[in-house]
Amino acid sequence: MKVLIDAFGGDHSPNEIIAGTVEAVTERNDFTAVLIGNPDIINEQLKNYTYSANRIEILPASEVITCEEEPTVAIRRKPDSTINVGFKELKENPEAKAFVSAGSTGAYLVGATLKLGRIKGVNRPALCPTMPTADPNKSVILLDAGANADCKAINLCQFAVMGSTYAKAMGVENPKVALLSNGTEDEKGNALVHEVLPMLKEMKSINFMGNCEARDILTGEYDVIVADGFSGNVAIKSIEGAVMTVMGLMKGEIFSTFKGKIGGLLLKDTFKRLAKKMDYNNNGGALFLGVEKVVIKAHGSSKRTAIKNAVLQAAEFASIGLAEKLKESIINESNF
Amino acid sequence: MKVLIDAFGGDHSPNEIIAGTVEAVTERNDFTAVLIGNPDIINEQLKNYTYSANRIEILPASEVITCEEEPTVAIRRKPDSTINVGFKELKENPEAKAFVSAGSTGAYLVGATLKLGRIKGVNRPALCPTMPTADPNKSVILLDAGANADCKAINLCQFAVMGSTYAKAMGVENPKVALLSNGTEDEKGNALVHEVLPMLKEMKSINFMGNCEARDILTGEYDVIVADGFSGNVAIKSIEGAVMTVMGLMKGEIFSTFKGKIGGLLLKDTFKRLAKKMDYNNNGGALFLGVEKVVIKAHGSSKRTAIKNAVLQAAEFASIGLAEKLKESIINESNF
Repeated sequence: MKVLIDAFGGDHSPNEIIAGTVEAVTERNDFTAVLIGNPDIINEQLKNYTYSANRIEILPASEVITCEEEPTVAIRRKPDSTINVGFKELKENPEAKAFVSAGSTGAYLVGATLKLGRIKGVNRPALCPTMPTADPNKSVILLDAGANADCKAINLCQFAVMGSTYAKAMGVENPKVALLSNGTEDEKGNALVHEVLPMLKEMKSINFMGNCEARDILTGEYDVIVADGFSGNVAIKSIEGAVMTVMGLMKGEIFSTFKGKIGGLLLKDTFKRLAKKMDYNNNGGALFLGVEKVVIKAHGSSKRTAIKNAVLQAAEFASIGLAEKLKESIINESNF
Repeated sequence: MKVLIDAFGGDHSPNEIIAGTVEAVTERNDFTAVLIGNPDIINEQLKNYTYSANRIEILPASEVITCEEEPTVAIRRKPDSTINVGFKELKENPEAKAFVSAGSTGAYLVGATLKLGRIKGVNRPALCPTMPTADPNKSVILLDAGANADCKAINLCQFAVMGSTYAKAMGVENPKVALLSNGTEDEKGNALVHEVLPMLKEMKSINFMGNCEARDILTGEYDVIVADGFSGNVAIKSIEGAVMTVMGLMKGEIFSTFKGKIGGLLLKDTFKRLAKKMDYNNNGGALFLGVEKVVIKAHGSSKRTAIKNAVLQAAEFASIGLAEKLKESIINESNF
């Protein structure tokens, strides 16, 4: 089994991408990591590490798509970019099961849809990050987190099935699925929510709990939150911003008094643990659900640990056949 | 000048509402507070406090609308409810300039629109809370935070003008207005954002900065965030949930080690200050902008301090003629 890794995507590429890949192959044995990009640079970097040479391969690609480029144009104009080369390999090589990139989100998702292709029955694939919750033993997944700014009701139904299947693959029994709305009552919601709510209630393959409010996302009450890509994006970025703001204000408050400074010193490790816990990047990357194989988008700011986690996550989901499970669940839902 | 207060709205009514009202009249001299509800109960409660008797009046109302009732039905079926009596007085008595309630949000907004009436030129009034930002000297207002789940482009343009006028009334010079989207680039957004972006760019009466991401809401970079009521609601409730989760997890982390417990004790005041700062209820209530007079929705869980702040806020905005400023700004914007 091969896991492909875009060595030239993200703010800290290629150094941190390569470092994270080496850490991943050291931690897990059942896959070969394939670093995609300029072979000279990758080989030069790899000299710094000790690892089993047969565990890491290089797939040459001469171009890189930047975040500033218009995704669809870039995918067309740069056939030898790491993203295009990766998706071509993923499509054509049966041994290649997963792809990880921290590069341009737009180009990566466009590439996945156009070059790798959608699962039959899925109209729109969705970006699906995992977030920590107030319950230390539970996490929550939200989809779509931003791949589709405008959604139809049928898209949200498919997100619900895919999210539920993904949660099951992560070990959650009978995952609780909720629809993001502006209130919990059935009457609440915008036109899309009003249309999709009765459809979700009809679906037998999911454990649907009804509408939820955005303040319930992190309570741990639900396993899967379904939303259109616009509101889903607003939700995860609001959470990200709020966590950053609280942590920043706390720092300011602590250093404003002497007593605070001492307390802050004693709690330094606590704060670090908490910041790590709340940083959803530490949960690995966001899955792009609904395409033919396992596609993981790591955050642009990922360093080696985040990349290691994303690569391990890719190997895990490839080994349990997540893409196949998704195909099966979509086929079984007779409404599509 | 009279400020009306719904004595029987909210989780802690009437006790905390009455206590907060007494505190407000003690702090500010230029208004008469009018408590609306059962006169016997209000009088009984008022006996517990010392205040100038001429500063608080009672307006009798025999019914209360609960949060469980369907707003439009309740407004029609309970003519002698505190909310209906309040809006009737606000409409008919020229001395009555503002109304504060911590009761059913739905019924309160429906009552404001149907009984008090919209400002000419405003198609949909908007709920507009104030939130703290990472910059201790700046706050940010967001509208619509949930009054209109489905919005048209023209509604968002009107929100922008009203939000900007409100920010100016709060003392912000040339307030920076941003449109909530799923990315900062012009290409980002859903169909509504794509339609409204060029319209906002054309408007001369606002200082429009373009699209913003949800993670920018609390940075302090912008003064006014414009959104449809669905995404706006998702944003503020995501922030609320994230803050609660971080604070809760922090408590758990702190009490998990001995060093943590000591640090936690030293930082007790810091945490309290921070929790207070992040709780947007402490900024008073959310204004309902676009109706004929000053209408403020306090949080259902408001205790005396939150009520005091909402009443003082009501008196302040009534005294500076916020409703008149809004009317003027709407008339001056030639696009409406």
